[in-house]
Amino acid sequence: MYNMGASTKPGYDIANKSREIIKSLIDDDTKYLSYEERDIVERVVHSTADPEYAKLVKISPTFVETALQCFDNKEDILTDINMVKSGITRYEGNVLCYIRDEKARKLAKKEEITRSAAAMRVAAENGFKGVVAIGNAPTALFEVMKLVEEGQMDAKAVVGVPVGFVGAADSKEALSKTDIPYTITTGPKGGTPIAVAVVNSLLNIRKN
Amino acid sequence: MYNMGASTKPGYDIANKSREIIKSLIDDDTKYLSYEERDIVERVVHSTADPEYAKLVKISPTFVETALQCFDNKEDILTDINMVKSGITRYEGNVLCYIRDEKARKLAKKEEITRSAAAMRVAAENGFKGVVAIGNAPTALFEVMKLVEEGQMDAKAVVGVPVGFVGAADSKEALSKTDIPYTITTGPKGGTPIAVAVVNSLLNIRKN
Repeated sequence: MYNMGASTKPGYDIANKSREIIKSLIDDDTKYLSYEERDIVERVVHSTADPEYAKLVKISPTFVETALQCFDNKEDILTDINMVKSGITRYEGNVLCYIRDEKARKLAKKEEITRSAAAMRVAAENGFKGVVAIGNAPTALFEVMKLVEEGQMDAKAVVGVPVGFVGAADSKEALSKTDIPYTITTGPKGGTPIAVAVVNSLLNIRKN
Repeated sequence: MYNMGASTKPGYDIANKSREIIKSLIDDDTKYLSYEERDIVERVVHSTADPEYAKLVKISPTFVETALQCFDNKEDILTDINMVKSGITRYEGNVLCYIRDEKARKLAKKEEITRSAAAMRVAAENGFKGVVAIGNAPTALFEVMKLVEEGQMDAKAVVGVPVGFVGAADSKEALSKTDIPYTITTGPKGGTPIAVAVVNSLLNIRKN
């Protein structure tokens, strides 16, 4: 059953009918993926109605297993902005976002970095451990990679799907060259619904 | 100055550089639009990195003026899901979302409608007046049109950009045939970042 956030019979019916349409549209692009990877890609296409994402989503070999393990252990999910946090409504663990944190605001000003990047540092200082989901800011993704490399952040898997024409594609390509298990979208496209779809796909799989 | 949610110098720099790239990509599609309409379309493309939206966004002649008037009067903004609400962070009026409201949950179950649709009815019962922003659920958009037609909801302008292969395109086409001032995206594409971009474009224009 594909819930896609649905909680009523009409909601489930729409979700199921959508999935059948999506499967027919992207079958060629997803046939060599695992069951879980295929679900992730289908859910991304569902949340955007954009079949091109079937060609853009790249999932590293250990991403699914690592992220599922984190979720089983109720480790944290860290998001760059509140729109991503708001979309993850069915997790028993903590879903964190520090963008409105006073420390992040001050740090951004002092260091002349974006508030999203500062929020990642604040999370690291607060002992974050788990899965990072970046749906908006390339600067946040670059900061996560830096913090992990310096041994200052325990990001076990990263959903890195920032969006935009400045820095987003580069940040995602850089992530794909690290040892961190990842899901990315190649090129400028991405965004909060994609980050939410990847996380919710795995959270839903755990319950079925 | 294009803030795009930025609040730091690096954030503004990225937003401005992005805008220049976007303008060059979609100039042909936007040259006959008003200043405000062009800003809306550019912001949608910015939030998705998808230039196709320049061809999909349709803004009715009185939408900008009507929505700006509502915002000047601090009327409500009603969203279908919390992801849209989370993205509208700089409004002095109320940004409402009833999807987690207990009354909406019960109503959805009793009437066998989606929770998003039930949430629109609850908003109407609570005396909502202002601008509706639907970024996810076609059922919510159909419900708004029904409530307005029955004289039960005072929706002065509607950002109707639900996403998906089931019902979304139909719901948006139906909205474009009503007398309600609207912004839609034609076809299945749409989503929460698009709804947020349209609203934030106008909120930002008021401040500049």
